Amino acid sequence: MDYIIGIDVGTTSTKALLYDLDGKIYAKANKGYTLYQDTPDMAEEDPDEIFNATSQAIQEVITKANRQDGKVVAVSWSAQQHSLIALDKNFKPLTRTMTWADNRAEKYAAQYKENGRGLEMYKRTGLPIHPMGPFYKLLWFKNEKPDIFKQAAYWVGIKEYIIWKYTGQLKEEVSMAAATGLLNMKTVKWDEEALKETGVKENQLPELVDTTYKIKGIQAEYAKVMGLDKDVYFVMGATDGALSTIGVGAIETGVLAINIGTSAAVRSFFDKPVIDPKARLYCYPVMKGKYLVGGPINNGGIVFSWAHDALFGGEQEAAKLLNIDSFDMLSKIAATVPAGSDGLIFHPYLGGERAPLWDANARGSFFGLNRKHTRAHMIRAVLEGLVYNLYSVTLALREVTGKPKAILAAGGFAKSKLWTQIMADVYESELTIPESYESGSLAAMFLAKMSLGLEDNLNDIKKYIGKSNTFEPNPKVYKKYRALIPIYLRLSRQFSSEYKSIADYQREFANDDDQD
Amino acid sequence: MDYIIGIDVGTTSTKALLYDLDGKIYAKANKGYTLYQDTPDMAEEDPDEIFNATSQAIQEVITKANRQDGKVVAVSWSAQQHSLIALDKNFKPLTRTMTWADNRAEKYAAQYKENGRGLEMYKRTGLPIHPMGPFYKLLWFKNEKPDIFKQAAYWVGIKEYIIWKYTGQLKEEVSMAAATGLLNMKTVKWDEEALKETGVKENQLPELVDTTYKIKGIQAEYAKVMGLDKDVYFVMGATDGALSTIGVGAIETGVLAINIGTSAAVRSFFDKPVIDPKARLYCYPVMKGKYLVGGPINNGGIVFSWAHDALFGGEQEAAKLLNIDSFDMLSKIAATVPAGSDGLIFHPYLGGERAPLWDANARGSFFGLNRKHTRAHMIRAVLEGLVYNLYSVTLALREVTGKPKAILAAGGFAKSKLWTQIMADVYESELTIPESYESGSLAAMFLAKMSLGLEDNLNDIKKYIGKSNTFEPNPKVYKKYRALIPIYLRLSRQFSSEYKSIADYQREFANDDDQD
Ligand SMILES: Nc1ncnc2c1ncn2[C@@H]1O[C@H](COP(=O)(O)OP(=O)(O)OP(=O)(O)O)[C@@H](O)[C@H]1O
Ligand SMILES: Nc1ncnc2c1ncn2[C@@H]1O[C@H](COP(=O)(O)OP(=O)(O)O)[C@@H](O)[C@H]1O
Repeated sequence: MDYIIGIDVGTTSTKALLYDLDGKIYAKANKGYTLYQDTPDMAEEDPDEIFNATSQAIQEVITKANRQDGKVVAVSWSAQQHSLIALDKNFKPLTRTMTWADNRAEKYAAQYKENGRGLEMYKRTGLPIHPMGPFYKLLWFKNEKPDIFKQAAYWVGIKEYIIWKYTGQLKEEVSMAAATGLLNMKTVKWDEEALKETGVKENQLPELVDTTYKIKGIQAEYAKVMGLDKDVYFVMGATDGALSTIGVGAIETGVLAINIGTSAAVRSFFDKPVIDPKARLYCYPVMKGKYLVGGPINNGGIVFSWAHDALFGGEQEAAKLLNIDSFDMLSKIAATVPAGSDGLIFHPYLGGERAPLWDANARGSFFGLNRKHTRAHMIRAVLEGLVYNLYSVTLALREVTGKPKAILAAGGFAKSKLWTQIMADVYESELTIPESYESGSLAAMFLAKMSLGLEDNLNDIKKYIGKSNTFEPNPKVYKKYRALIPIYLRLSRQFSSEYKSIADYQREFANDDDQD
Repeated sequence: MDYIIGIDVGTTSTKALLYDLDGKIYAKANKGYTLYQDTPDMAEEDPDEIFNATSQAIQEVITKANRQDGKVVAVSWSAQQHSLIALDKNFKPLTRTMTWADNRAEKYAAQYKENGRGLEMYKRTGLPIHPMGPFYKLLWFKNEKPDIFKQAAYWVGIKEYIIWKYTGQLKEEVSMAAATGLLNMKTVKWDEEALKETGVKENQLPELVDTTYKIKGIQAEYAKVMGLDKDVYFVMGATDGALSTIGVGAIETGVLAINIGTSAAVRSFFDKPVIDPKARLYCYPVMKGKYLVGGPINNGGIVFSWAHDALFGGEQEAAKLLNIDSFDMLSKIAATVPAGSDGLIFHPYLGGERAPLWDANARGSFFGLNRKHTRAHMIRAVLEGLVYNLYSVTLALREVTGKPKAILAAGGFAKSKLWTQIMADVYESELTIPESYESGSLAAMFLAKMSLGLEDNLNDIKKYIGKSNTFEPNPKVYKKYRALIPIYLRLSRQFSSEYKSIADYQREFANDDDQD
């Protein structure tokens, strides 16, 4: 029997899953790595630490599964977007990898927003005007780290670097290239203007290939350690955003995929490029006739985790003693409060926000407090506020693409029946949630099958997705959300005028000790 | 030796204190009563229940003190403002007493605000345009309860009713009369226009007298029960607002008195009527050449109590087990967070607000949340937000009266060193806090001494006030408040446009159960 490994190189860890060709999972492994954050805007990782974690994860699934009845024929890749590493002419890293969460290029994004050039570039490349984008990071390097910029022979992302290390080939597939902001979304080639502005030459970038492109063979030293055949195929795969959308089955134009994991996202495939005149949404080509349009959202489940720690620190001990999951406990506490949290509204922008605000200064708030409100209201308001925010991104999406045909959702949030029901009620729509939520690595596996000629229609991934649950909106409840959402949206607009002042305060007085 | 009893008929209980003529306290008693709140806007009390509680409190201090060496020569009165009772021609109550917290006359206040008539009346009487005022309550009775309105032979407040019951004399002193909105503050007579608009005739109101006016003798039946001499004097006294200002020693023009008890207030005496063009402040004549100007604030210590219960429910048990006061515990937790709560701002309007917003729809909020914020930040932000709000009322006061000469503060909040220090830092001013905080009954006692000819200068109350503590602003800290206060004030303005919508939601969906 043959096997395929699907890998997902995430922001905090690499996951590897071993599948057989029917999509059955035999083993999973997960290896974490350090996020370096010496200053609040910095978010770097060590490319070789990630490479090692990935090797360990692959080795672990092979060992765990212990299948002597066949071999791993392909390793296929999903990975975080927007990462950037400078390599010297021997492909040795000159820098750590700057992750999507690194905001040091903020000044350049602000300039480009200000002078209108950002909007023009967005219309060419589909990258929103934000420091996450390698386009803006390159401007930062050019201006603030001219030595490194001069020394750099190549500019790559983490997936390209890892695949290069295993195979000796430097390639970049379309979806990841699009997320750099250096790819012209119409020609699907490196964009001349983007190269001119950043001062990067085409020969400093990997060769562009398709998502199903495969590289045969792996450096012998690694093959041995990991227990892989030296002729294994490396299938390029795609971004985690594209693959987790495919992996829940949101493949046809107009089917919406919503994800709430640590962060969150609202995404949909379209058959042609889609441009938001307000640049709130990205648009990245992924495959022929498949453009991924969506909004990346920082404040996802991490905000529920914050509320869990900040508001219910004491009760977690109780949950531990009772041997119940403390997120489940909070979800039950939230369920004691009526929908709409008796008119308490939470804006979840604890760490600035990308879509829909694109404002690094955004902050969170509870609004509407009266004397009957308790922590239980606050926790429900947090769950609701996170969904209102996704809904507001969806409204932006609807402006450019029309009403979604169907909604598929996934991510850690789906462990809570309450939270998924809130989503169905806020969206006033049926919601389908696959029980398995390893959608990224599943789609990577499926691309490998396409690459190997074992599948030829992306839609056929659906047979591997497995059982789904459906949630229906409750008419008694959604009229409440209809009343609250306009207030939520108007407040968002009102608050925005004070985000800068409060964020400036928080930066200025960080670590102040009040002593004379 | 002779004794004087100072009584304070509060919103939740009556306090009685037995003093000797040197101001020494021999006994205290406190008797509570029910607040009837069948609907959210209603806040009534039973006048006879209050009368009985008062009798019990008087009896209790006399019994407790057990002084056989002399007699009680006077009972002097402080009481809640704005209460209203309809009496029939035999002085029997036709209604309960509507307290200041009763908002059923909201519609009439709104009309008067709308058509400009409220501002004109405010300029005549000094009563802000708010349903708390008996002027607006009378409009409500006239229109919504015409039967009672027709039957009513007299309209009185709770102090007038109680004194009538003990003495058979129906009098009303100037400060309490002013708080009805029926007194012309320039002539210090019942205002013709106010009477005309409400349709109440002068002979339906008590006779106006001075605050030091005394009535000799008490109905024999009560004298006996309570252990009072039948020739005891009843000294009219004044409103709790006026007396607690006098009782902390804020007597000269321009000395500011701040109180945070359950509710809160910012007040100052002036030597002539003071009119705020925006009607944010009341102005009530109290004595010759003494006009009390100020802003009544609903959201005082009650908001700290809310945060205590809503955010730290679990920890109160721990405090109990440790035998420490749970408010002290919270104050210590708040003190672990730097001044400015790392940029978290709380607006304390949990139950609507009078000064400075005069908006019953106002609600509370936390603004500026980031991932480092915890419950400890929230509790400090609550204490700070309450002070910012008092400060914003003080700004209104300063607009019409100039910078305060000195600041005196009192109320339950003063038990917390942290909270008082926050006030000194926000106000950037030295703060003086008398250790005793029975200021209302102390001032009532002092008025009795004036009435009996034993004192003749209000300023001499200072010798009875006792020890005070002084707090100095910390220069390292107040620059933070200087940065935050403008944000707080701008947000107040921004939020105001959404208070009605969220309050409407909360009313519409109160008690909704979300079931199909
Ligand atoms: N240890 C403490 N530290 C800080 N604040 C406290 C403490 N104990 C009580 N308080 C606050 O004091 C408030 C009560 O104040 P106080 O005793 O002056 O009330 P009151 O007389 O009922 O008020 P009012 O003057 O409005 O009628 C409580 O609501 C609480 O917020
Ligand atoms: N039992 C639960 N109920 C609701 N939400 C949960 C539960 N457990 C975890 N979560 C949420 O899921 C988030 C993690 O989602 P997941 O998809 O596993 O993360 P990642 O994006 O890192 O892969 C957490 O931040 C938390 O908010």
